[in-house]
Parts: sequence; structure tokens; C-alpha cells
Amino acid sequence: MFKTVLIANRGEIALRVARTCRELGIRTVAVHSTADRESAVVRFADESVHIGPPSAKASYLHMPSIMEAALRTGADAIHPGYGFLSEDPDFAEVCQTHGVTFIGPPPHVIEKLGDKALARRLMAEAGLPVLPGSTGAVNGLAEARKVAERIGYPLILKAVAGGGGRGIAVVRAADQLTQAYRETCAHARAVFGDERLYIERFVEDARHIEVQVLCDRHGGAVHLGERDCSVQRRYQKLIEEAPAPNLPDELRQQMCAAAVRGALAVGYVGAATFEFVVSSDGSFHLMEVNCRLQVEHPVTEMSTGIDLVREQLLIAAGRPLSVRQEDLAPRGWSIESRVNAEDPERNFAPTPGLLTEFMPPGGPFVRVDSHAYPGWLMGPDYDSLLAKTVVWAPDREQAIARMDRALGEFRVEGQGLRTTIGFLREILAHPAHRAGTHTTGFVAEMRTETAAVRGGPGS
Amino acid sequence: MFKTVLIANRGEIALRVARTCRELGIRTVAVHSTADRESAVVRFADESVHIGPPSAKASYLHMPSIMEAALRTGADAIHPGYGFLSEDPDFAEVCQTHGVTFIGPPPHVIEKLGDKALARRLMAEAGLPVLPGSTGAVNGLAEARKVAERIGYPLILKAVAGGGGRGIAVVRAADQLTQAYRETCAHARAVFGDERLYIERFVEDARHIEVQVLCDRHGGAVHLGERDCSVQRRYQKLIEEAPAPNLPDELRQQMCAAAVRGALAVGYVGAATFEFVVSSDGSFHLMEVNCRLQVEHPVTEMSTGIDLVREQLLIAAGRPLSVRQEDLAPRGWSIESRVNAEDPERNFAPTPGLLTEFMPPGGPFVRVDSHAYPGWLMGPDYDSLLAKTVVWAPDREQAIARMDRALGEFRVEGQGLRTTIGFLREILAHPAHRAGTHTTGFVAEMRTETAAVRGGPGS
Repeated sequence: MFKTVLIANRGEIALRVARTCRELGIRTVAVHSTADRESAVVRFADESVHIGPPSAKASYLHMPSIMEAALRTGADAIHPGYGFLSEDPDFAEVCQTHGVTFIGPPPHVIEKLGDKALARRLMAEAGLPVLPGSTGAVNGLAEARKVAERIGYPLILKAVAGGGGRGIAVVRAADQLTQAYRETCAHARAVFGDERLYIERFVEDARHIEVQVLCDRHGGAVHLGERDCSVQRRYQKLIEEAPAPNLPDELRQQMCAAAVRGALAVGYVGAATFEFVVSSDGSFHLMEVNCRLQVEHPVTEMSTGIDLVREQLLIAAGRPLSVRQEDLAPRGWSIESRVNAEDPERNFAPTPGLLTEFMPPGGPFVRVDSHAYPGWLMGPDYDSLLAKTVVWAPDREQAIARMDRALGEFRVEGQGLRTTIGFLREILAHPAHRAGTHTTGFVAEMRTETAAVRGGPGS
Repeated sequence: MFKTVLIANRGEIALRVARTCRELGIRTVAVHSTADRESAVVRFADESVHIGPPSAKASYLHMPSIMEAALRTGADAIHPGYGFLSEDPDFAEVCQTHGVTFIGPPPHVIEKLGDKALARRLMAEAGLPVLPGSTGAVNGLAEARKVAERIGYPLILKAVAGGGGRGIAVVRAADQLTQAYRETCAHARAVFGDERLYIERFVEDARHIEVQVLCDRHGGAVHLGERDCSVQRRYQKLIEEAPAPNLPDELRQQMCAAAVRGALAVGYVGAATFEFVVSSDGSFHLMEVNCRLQVEHPVTEMSTGIDLVREQLLIAAGRPLSVRQEDLAPRGWSIESRVNAEDPERNFAPTPGLLTEFMPPGGPFVRVDSHAYPGWLMGPDYDSLLAKTVVWAPDREQAIARMDRALGEFRVEGQGLRTTIGFLREILAHPAHRAGTHTTGFVAEMRTETAAVRGGPGS
């Protein structure tokens, strides 16, 4: 097993990884930007290294600083968390070159799956259902028009280098294509440095359901069941759960088997997530494969009892999978809510500032993954995630009640601070969510309803 | 189901009960002494009622104030928590008289089991193994001597009205009997208002293993497996776990079956705990039956997935058991550590005071049950429990590592505050505890070892 692991990330996920390292007796090295010098993981880790100014480019994305920190502290492995360098094949390569184990799949696998157009093709070849669309990246607006004519509207433009809900545009009619294409190209160039786009049919009223997979270096592969991440606001997940409600068991089995098949087809190693869109007719299609731990991984952990970071570490150290498929039957129901420091009344604008009070919920079957603490100065430089609140219960109804209770007891205060707690509780209470019939359009519809009620007579 | 539940308790257990009530949509009424007016459950509950000065006799043990609060707030049930009035048959009776449901067994059952000597006899009649000893309460010193001659030394004197490790004395030789008998009588009279004692053989190198039972009003009864509570300091539990390590499965099954048999024999209703002493020869004997939720109930919850307070409420409301024995197979390993505000260097003297920092651990499979918060003034009036830290893991080794990690990240500060965290971590790390071969004498032996090392050459 590794002696020292450097965690090339920040926030809750850095602390999350450090906690498991500690349990395994592994020494932890935190890296931090100037803005994060008082962060929870810096307080927790055995050692910490300053790697640059607040800008991610100059710190958490700056490979030379991170590699230098790794070599200086004698780290024999690097855990990249999610975001930042976690899906950068060059970083995985640089780690390899320096003899430091990258905790994730091999560089060539990240590269293949990171090119979303290529991944689409490879997965189709492996027998996974993909949506009708372009074969690879489209070569300019003229080809985009041809593909659009073939597959019809609505369609979705996606950046080849995109992911996590960014670099995406839905096009509902032919007369919107030109403008949408140009804007998305420009956006993709600006954000990812790669303007290539690919095209897929857009499925209305669909559910976002993803499958967690683990593969070792010895050809072993298991799935850990699915997560339903249909509660989204502009492609950003808000609430996730495992298992997915109202999902026929046959469909579940097909999706899980497809994910394992896809992972084996590309020689995957580590933890992967296969994101599917499930249509109202019960068909499913692959959206993308993510080569890292997901933000929402705790719901899988709570329903399976498996510590996914532990598995990532064991796999990276060359161990065969410690779990067999038949021992992985999910139990009960788990839900995660992302509590963000955002103002729902001002279009979810982040509200950074000093936390004067932070007392997360506790008690039976409540888990909180958070890097926040009273006195923490939440700067404007990074995402607005305050805490992932995770609950488990024997069934979905109890899990929803428990989540509502947990969110209700959350005490978090700060100057100018607003949180999504009230908004999350509205979602939990909504009949569509309670029934588990919601699709990815649900939150937008709910907000339209709310606005209509507020703007209606008597208000 | 009940509309309003009054919680006749304080501290972490009051909050624990309120949390589950909230999840069930039940309105909660907290009662509090003057000292507890800023307590967590007062902040959490839907309503709170002041019931008297800090002295327990004048508040949490004062039935008229509590009944008045219940009637005034329209409570249709009272949850007594543990300690205070939880095992007082008179209180259960008073509740009944006022048409308020007492969440616990019927008064006559509490009465029978509360008389530890009578309970011993009843359980022996039900076929449960009890230790050689007096048939009931001994009638004076002369009879005590006769019993002692019959069963031999060492023996243990126990107050008939005792429980929770109080009113107990171990007698190792005949010449100590007179003094021990007189002192324990006096102590029992002072603490319980009942000087009667009974006598049992004292088992050296024994383990304390208890079985959790649930019984409904319809003759349904299940056990939820056992808990090992052998890590004790002067009969006070420090660390508990489920299941018990190194317990042969046949023995486990015998103990669990005995507990269910005992509960059915007395017409038990609600949650009961059968405390057994397990000798090094593998025999087991009943010590006592507790008619309430135990402090350490969370380890059973974590290993079975059952919310015991929820079951208590459902049972009290007349519902049949929601769980079947065959669905109750415990999974993985759970450990609880009691973090107390005590100074291990000054013989565990409580260190009350203002909490300036309180940040409990979090992350994967960690649960904290606590009523503490930053800014809370912990008075000298009640017990020194700060937080129950509970972890779950697939196996014992991982659970111990996780507990050590969780305790290590606990941040709690206050003027003059000392905690048992370091001491608990010493226990976790000790070879005897790691091997799971420890008995109830372990902590005392460990402290002797430590003292020897500290006092040895070079120190």
C-alpha cells in the first residue's frame, strides 16, 4: 500500500480522500492555494504545501507546482479528486513519468473517454446504446446541418472536451442552429481550449441515471448499482439518490451490465461512472463516461457499504477487487443533497463570505461531507458547495423524511450568506419528487409553477 | 400515530428522540430545567416547557411538572429516554391515569423487572441462566453470610433498585462482607431510597454482552442481535460494539433466543435490553433486564439499519412489529465511543464549562449523536457526556481504524475542558482491544500498565 498520498484537490473532496487515507494508515499531503491556507484539509492532513495563488490555473491546475510538491514530500501516489486535473490525461502521464502513481485510469483511457465524440463511437462499438447523432466531432456548421436533418430536432450540441454540464446547448428548431452552434463553439474554445462539438438527439422528459463501476488491474470489474441524478438545475445536479425510483429491475440490470461491458472494452482501471439518459419509453442511451469519483459517490457508498475511495486506493496499489458482484446488493435508500452558498432568489448567485455559524445535522443515518467550519472564510474563487448532506433509510419515503429533517436542523450563518437549503426542501416536498416521477426538466418546471403562484391573483 | 410527543429527558437522547419524531411528522415538546434553557433539543423541538430548577429531583424527575407540561401542550405520548423516569413504574402509571401513552412497557412489567431480585427469579423460571446467588433480596447481614457461604467468593452485592452500574460492590473474601454490605445498603438507600440488596456470584474475566429485543402489543418479538459493552470503567460503559467479537455463533444464538424468551415470559412491550455476563468458559448468565432505550443503542441501529426510536413509537401506537426476524441479519461492524467532558488525568473528574469550539467528525460512515454546540455552557448539574461517536464499516478492523480517524478529527475546546478522546484512542489501539479478547477488567488493567510504564525507569 502507498506510504504517502498527495491530494491534488481542495474543498470537501480533498478532506473526503484524506479521511480514508488516514483510516488506511497512509500519510496525507494536502496542497493548497493562498485562498485555502486555512482550509479543513490543510488542518487535517499530515503535511500541506502551498502551490500558488487563488486562480485554479496557477494552483490546482498547475501541474509543475503539484508535481514538485509530490516529489518534495515523497508522495508515492496522487489522488486527483473530481474536477481540476482528475480527467486530464497529460497529468496522469506526468505522474507516470515521475514514478508517482496516478489514482485513476491509465492516461490513454482518460484520453479516449475524455474525447466525448470518440468515447461515443467506442462505446457504440462495445454494444452500448448511444443516441442518434454525429459519428464524431462535426466538421463545421455545414456538417452540423446535415446531421441535424438526419436526426431531427430537438438536438443537443456538446463540446467534445466538455463534461459536468458545461459546453452544452439544446437546439429546438433549424432556425436556431447557426447561432447556437457559433455560441457553443466559442464557449467551448474559451472554457476548454477546444472548440470541437458533437451532436446528439435531445431526449425530452428524460431521467439522468448513472452506474458506478469499479475495475481492477487484473480484469476484474463490478458495478455498484445506479444513482438517479435527475434533480438538476441547468445540468447541475442538486439531489441524487440510490437506487433510482421506479426503475424496472430488468432495465436496471441491462444498464449495469452495459456499464461493466463498456468499462472492460476500454481496459478501464479504477472508479468510473457511466451516465445514461433514460427516456419515458424505457429505453436508455449512454451520455458519457466519467473517469473519476463523482460528487454524488456517497449515495452509492451508503447503499452498498463500500468506501469508494478505499477501493480506488487498493486498485491503484495493484490489489484485486475486494468485493464480488454477488455481495454488492444495494440495501435501503440513500439520498444526497448539495447545500450550496447561493441565493435562490437571485438566480443562485454565490454568496461567499465569513461563516459565523456552521453546525451540520447529525443523529441516525445522517452523514455530512463538508470542509466548512465556523470561522471559515469562503472566498469567491471556487465553487459554492458548502456541504453534502447524505442520509440512509430502509425505504425512499423514510429517506426523504430523514433528509428533510436533516436539512431542517442545519445551522449555517454568515454575513450575506444565503443557502439552497430551503430550495432543496421545496424539491423534496414536491409531489413529482415524492412520487419519483420527475425528469431532468422537473426543477425548471417547479420554478415556473412557483413563479406563477407568486405572480398570481392575491399576491 | 401520535400527534404530539413530549420528551421527558435532556441532552443527546432528548434530541435523538426529537429527530425521529420529526421524521414521522410528530410534533415535539421538549421539557427543560433552568440550566438547559439553551439546550439543543429546546432549539430543535416545536415547543418547549420550563419544568423547574437544575436539580433533577425538581425538574426531570418531577412528575407533576412533566405531566402538567404534557397536558398543557396536548401531548398524547411521552418518551422518557434513558435514566430519569424511564424505568419508574409510578411514572408509567401516572401517564396511563392521565390518558397519555407512556412509550415503554406497561407499569407492572417495569415494576417486576425493576426489582432486580424479583426479575432474577422470574427469568430463572422462564429458563434463562442466572448466576448462583440469593433467591430474592437478602433479609439482613445474617442471610447475606449464609448465601455467601453457599455460593463462595468473589461475590457481588447489588441494590435491588439499582442499575446502570450504580449500587454495586464486589466482595472478594468473607472478612470484607460485613463492611461492604453495610456500605452498599447505605449507598442504595441514599441513591435509590431502597436499601435492599441481592447477591450473585462474581465472574472474573467476564464479558458484558447484551441483547436488544423489540416486542409489540400483539405477541410479536424479535431480537436485533447483541452488543459487546465490555470496555468499562467502574461499570460505566466507554466503548460498545455490534456484533460482539469472537463470540461463537451458537452462543450468540442461544443468548438471543434466551432474551426473546425472557421478554415474552413477562409480557414485555417495547424495546428491552437483556444484559448478560459471558464467562471465559463460554457460559452465559443474565445480569439484568433494562426497560428502556440504552445509551449504546446506535450500534444496533447501524448494524441492522433499524431506527429503534421509530420502532418504539410504532409499537407504543399499537402497530405490529414492522420487521421480521429473518430480515434482521446484522451487517458489518459498528462501534460507539462515548466522548465525555472529563479529565482522565484527574480520575475522570467532569470538566464543565463553556464550549468555545465544537466540530464533530464527519464523512463516510460516521454518525454523531450530540447535544453540544459551540457556545453551549455545559453546567455541572448533569452527566458529562459530550457526544456519542458512532462508526460503521464492513469489518471490525476497518471500524476501529475509522473510529480512530473520527476521534482524531474531533475538534472540541473550552475553558478548562478536558475530554476522554485521547483515552478512548489508547483503548482502541491496545492489543487486547484490537484482538477483541478484552473483558470488563480490561480498562483497569490497561491503566495499571500505563501507570507502571509512566512510573518506570527513565520516566
